[in-house]
Amino acid sequence: MLVLLDQTRLPAEEVELVCTDAPALVEAIRSLAVRGAPVLGIAGAYGVALAAVRGFDVADAARALESARPTAVNLSVGVRRAEAAHQAALAKTGDATEAAAAALAAARSLHRQDAEASARMAAHGLALLDELMPGGGHRILTHCNTGSLVSGGEGTAFAVALAAHREGRLRRLWVDETRPLLQGARLTAYEAARSGMAYTLLTDNAAGSLFAAGEVDAVLIGADRIAADGSVANKVGSYPLAVLARYHHVPFIVVAPVTTVDPDTPDGASIEVEQRPGFEVTEVTAPQVPVTGAGGGIPVAPLGTQAYNPAFDVTPPELVTAIVTEEGAVSPVTAEALAELCARSRQVTIS
Amino acid sequence: MLVLLDQTRLPAEEVELVCTDAPALVEAIRSLAVRGAPVLGIAGAYGVALAAVRGFDVADAARALESARPTAVNLSVGVRRAEAAHQAALAKTGDATEAAAAALAAARSLHRQDAEASARMAAHGLALLDELMPGGGHRILTHCNTGSLVSGGEGTAFAVALAAHREGRLRRLWVDETRPLLQGARLTAYEAARSGMAYTLLTDNAAGSLFAAGEVDAVLIGADRIAADGSVANKVGSYPLAVLARYHHVPFIVVAPVTTVDPDTPDGASIEVEQRPGFEVTEVTAPQVPVTGAGGGIPVAPLGTQAYNPAFDVTPPELVTAIVTEEGAVSPVTAEALAELCARSRQVTIS
Repeated sequence: MLVLLDQTRLPAEEVELVCTDAPALVEAIRSLAVRGAPVLGIAGAYGVALAAVRGFDVADAARALESARPTAVNLSVGVRRAEAAHQAALAKTGDATEAAAAALAAARSLHRQDAEASARMAAHGLALLDELMPGGGHRILTHCNTGSLVSGGEGTAFAVALAAHREGRLRRLWVDETRPLLQGARLTAYEAARSGMAYTLLTDNAAGSLFAAGEVDAVLIGADRIAADGSVANKVGSYPLAVLARYHHVPFIVVAPVTTVDPDTPDGASIEVEQRPGFEVTEVTAPQVPVTGAGGGIPVAPLGTQAYNPAFDVTPPELVTAIVTEEGAVSPVTAEALAELCARSRQVTIS
Repeated sequence: MLVLLDQTRLPAEEVELVCTDAPALVEAIRSLAVRGAPVLGIAGAYGVALAAVRGFDVADAARALESARPTAVNLSVGVRRAEAAHQAALAKTGDATEAAAAALAAARSLHRQDAEASARMAAHGLALLDELMPGGGHRILTHCNTGSLVSGGEGTAFAVALAAHREGRLRRLWVDETRPLLQGARLTAYEAARSGMAYTLLTDNAAGSLFAAGEVDAVLIGADRIAADGSVANKVGSYPLAVLARYHHVPFIVVAPVTTVDPDTPDGASIEVEQRPGFEVTEVTAPQVPVTGAGGGIPVAPLGTQAYNPAFDVTPPELVTAIVTEEGAVSPVTAEALAELCARSRQVTIS
């Protein structure tokens, strides 16, 4: 079985969610009990191992897991890695138990690699910050949640801010609340508070005022998928920040493991953006809120109101100052530089 | 006594709030039971009349009302107009009853003028839209609430969209939910639904995706104060829309009565922006939500989280395509053009 921290209950409660089979995990992914690009890859790999260990059809489980959410490429990468290990071991030994063990080993290896990648992204990201802003005392704006909740390690963008904090070089972490699901308020503020960082929460609307007042030195965000041309799909609200950052000449930095780069997605227009249910907007859901609306929240709009609710948006490469990965930073962001980085990463993995 | 529709209870309930003296009205203004720049002016004028009729100190009441909220200039304009009428009548007749009647007449006149101004703004605004986008089928994005709830008439920006709707030229009204207090979801969606408009609600974060997809033909917003140089203070989140609109070459149009222009505020930097309590961000308040947090809402962030919560932001004139008033539109927005418009308005009022 797989035990997850149920992120929908944070910060009110720390509740464990136990998944005993792949369909339960699919549901946990859909309901966002587990969310965040890197950890989705790890969860997907463990899900395949779980199906194999419990004797279910591994290919069926893999397809169901892969399609639980469409935008984050890491999910698919993790699922396929465990599935490939399972298939290879089965082909070699013909033994289901050994094949299941191979799938589990692949998941554990991905988990460990992700933790290591996190530490390396943090180091590369901090070096970049120090290069861009030699004075230190960084005031960083972040969106959504990219810390240890989404990672085998300390996360992506958040790990960079945490590294700056540990070195005494973080003056303030500005935390966008990140509507509609408030991952910033519920999860990033929770992680920032636990780490003792100087942080301030704001509505996504108020970021513009901070830029205008010169209170933001850099924007740091994660990514759910990076196209071959460097277009970045991330939590809705990232693109407006990129436009604001450009208008105010503030660096806009994306931090993500190399697995987030998808060479099969040529450009931003090819990225499938998940459209989520309208009730996430027309109702407010919060931990401990009694259920009243159709979507399980409190209605805040008139009944029958239609909502536009894309989960992600796409930022074109020309608005991205740098993409920081565990293999180093790419800046300026070009298709060639990204391809080179991915090639380097494959060499490292193979060697 | 003064009877108001309690806007904090919408759209769940239509509840009347009865104010029997000026301090009750001050509290209603502070708690946003009555809100929106034009209607604040009307409410302020009626508040002065109420104090006069009930025999309270008029100057005391006027000062308390004026300072209930700092950013909207209309509040102060309305209060002073009723107070001046009261003083003039008192000086002339020496009779408190006649002076109170004069204050009430001034409030009623302001109320009527505001309704007329609304109709004229709608006509000027629609003419501008048709000029900018001759094809019709306007897709308009709006922020916060600017309809009949904020006005003696049909409002400001919303009145323009409503005029387009009545003429069959509104394809869609995109309604920003407008965090933290969700005036878009609660109030604008309520007004749009009642008017039978084709509207769609979105989180403020999702506006960027609409711009990127070419789904926005114009942004229409109201204003709480316009400085002499054309800087526009409006609900927080307006400035990011102005930056997005500029990046996407979409007209950004401000609709407000001439009284919103404050010649005593030279520029954007001189506008006092109201900072509201952090619990509006760290807790979610919604109609019918049982009270649990310190601010009366459901906590969505860890206890002790500090929040940055400016109620307004300031958009510089170079990002504003046009300012539409009852006296006509100003485009491009310059100090000279605005001053001329205000002078014209004073002539009209005197004649």
